[in-house]
Amino acid sequence: MASVSVDEAMRRAIELAARGLGATSPNPVVGCVLLDTDGEVVGEGFHAYAGGPHAEIVALAQAGARARGGTAVVTLEPCDHTGRTGPCSHALIAAGVARVVVAVPDPNPVASGGAATLRAAGVQVTLGVRAQEAEAGNVAWLTSMRRGWPYLIWKYAATLDGRSAAADGTSMWITSEAARIDVHALRGTVDAVLAGVGTVLTDDPRLTARNLRDGTLAIRQPLRVVVDSSGRTPAEARVRDGAARTWVATAAEVGAGPDGRVDLAALLAELHHRGVRAALLEGGPTLAGAFLAAGLVDKIVGYVAPKLLGAGPTALLDAGVSTIADAIDLEITDVTRVGPDLRITALPRKREA
Amino acid sequence: MASVSVDEAMRRAIELAARGLGATSPNPVVGCVLLDTDGEVVGEGFHAYAGGPHAEIVALAQAGARARGGTAVVTLEPCDHTGRTGPCSHALIAAGVARVVVAVPDPNPVASGGAATLRAAGVQVTLGVRAQEAEAGNVAWLTSMRRGWPYLIWKYAATLDGRSAAADGTSMWITSEAARIDVHALRGTVDAVLAGVGTVLTDDPRLTARNLRDGTLAIRQPLRVVVDSSGRTPAEARVRDGAARTWVATAAEVGAGPDGRVDLAALLAELHHRGVRAALLEGGPTLAGAFLAAGLVDKIVGYVAPKLLGAGPTALLDAGVSTIADAIDLEITDVTRVGPDLRITALPRKREA
Repeated sequence: MASVSVDEAMRRAIELAARGLGATSPNPVVGCVLLDTDGEVVGEGFHAYAGGPHAEIVALAQAGARARGGTAVVTLEPCDHTGRTGPCSHALIAAGVARVVVAVPDPNPVASGGAATLRAAGVQVTLGVRAQEAEAGNVAWLTSMRRGWPYLIWKYAATLDGRSAAADGTSMWITSEAARIDVHALRGTVDAVLAGVGTVLTDDPRLTARNLRDGTLAIRQPLRVVVDSSGRTPAEARVRDGAARTWVATAAEVGAGPDGRVDLAALLAELHHRGVRAALLEGGPTLAGAFLAAGLVDKIVGYVAPKLLGAGPTALLDAGVSTIADAIDLEITDVTRVGPDLRITALPRKREA
Repeated sequence: MASVSVDEAMRRAIELAARGLGATSPNPVVGCVLLDTDGEVVGEGFHAYAGGPHAEIVALAQAGARARGGTAVVTLEPCDHTGRTGPCSHALIAAGVARVVVAVPDPNPVASGGAATLRAAGVQVTLGVRAQEAEAGNVAWLTSMRRGWPYLIWKYAATLDGRSAAADGTSMWITSEAARIDVHALRGTVDAVLAGVGTVLTDDPRLTARNLRDGTLAIRQPLRVVVDSSGRTPAEARVRDGAARTWVATAAEVGAGPDGRVDLAALLAELHHRGVRAALLEGGPTLAGAFLAAGLVDKIVGYVAPKLLGAGPTALLDAGVSTIADAIDLEITDVTRVGPDLRITALPRKREA
């Protein structure tokens, strides 16, 4: 096999890392490529699920003795602590790796320190190779670890004129089956799905990740979170069925904001404490408005159906904006056709203080 | 020069025709390519403006004697009547053209008959070459001629959540300068721009086609039409300035529907009578809803800004839809980024009776 450059190896490691998306939480996705002294690939690995072996361990196991004197190319700084598995820093040292090339340093105060440990053992450490690309591949985990609350994606479905239901309240189905399948795939990449109690009372959603063709549940289900300030979620609501874990978050439990409703920042902090790194906010319009007004939304995924209604509830309400100069500015990062619908992905721009 | 096939010549003729878009009304756009007996191009022409020479005449003038025995490839059936210019059928016969290849027959009862005249004179006539492509290039004119009222494009600008202004009524500017420049270019392709009196009273728009960089007016201005059932357009409204012609269409003049408002079908018939083939409906939400509810909109061009408001007027109201099954179904035919905004083009699907 031909030798590859460290840069090429990192690109491959980032691809490998992405294969773990949606399954590693509360851990990050990580990919690792091991090169021998000639620059030939002798091991590859990625972190596939929380509790499973880390990417470096998988790659080292493949390489065996060929790792000695070689280079480990890894998307995130190797961990330095013993959790459900041993520290990767020690494993790399024990295998005799001469150099470790890292894309992004580990922001997790518990696990970081791997680079220092490696250096102390005489291993050459390089940081920052393809860092931007690796960051993008791990954005939810890195963002949530750095600031202590989950990466929050607001997902909505609406007509081209911004309605989420018709005047009589009917909304099945605004978007196509293709778009709904896409939403279930999106649920499969997050640790929690959030909805307001109003949505639960109106639509009685399941909020599970399912195969829409046959109704079967995905193996890994996000935590279902009902934001329910005064505890109105009915005992027989579908969201309380046994298909997945559910947390009805009340103001009494989480704490209340000045308006008496659930304190959203406290809610997100509690979710982070429970291991939620990425969360999907699915409705309704008032809850979305409150999260947006508080600047707590990291990404917006809108499914826009080629339909017009001209009346009915809108997808967003009460976002704290009363004049055009205060509009919440976004950057549209992607527009993709999903069946007949458009999926528009956007990032809120940081507001100047 | 190498000889070209009739099919290639037609593709070129369709390209030539498009150069007249926005300047030929009430005439269609037409392109013509003349091939000599060896299939070499000896003349090209397009209809550049109403009253100017037709495409065939331009091409024949270029070709001179080389047209004899050749083939005229033309996007629309040559006219057979004397208007501001003589009949093209006679000119083709006089030039000794042996064959005429046409994409689309002329639906205009006044001008049609060219193919029959040509055949009667012994000219071979072929119809339907690249007909779909030529139709698309002339869709507004063909549609309006076939049914007797203008091709109507509804243009709107809104935030991603469907708002056309903030809660306090401010709307300058929802979309970017790039999008507004695009709108002025769109105005340059139509014969009339329509707005409701509510929009005139609220925004006092000029409704002219301008160069936004320096404010200069386009040479050709669409007719400005204010749909104003009870004649409330102020004398000092900008839309009444001298920059372009203006028609304040009242119920008294046009006729009223059952609701006492301007009868929209009668309005469009009158516009057709005045030579309007393509018209741009620019607002407001209630007028757009009325046109959509009546099935009178042929195309929708939405400029969607990467902004969220969560409150304020919506781009569309009262479209006659009360339940999701009655939503106005569209087909999205194009999504293009215009500056930071999206331009979404859609066609209403025909409703089943």
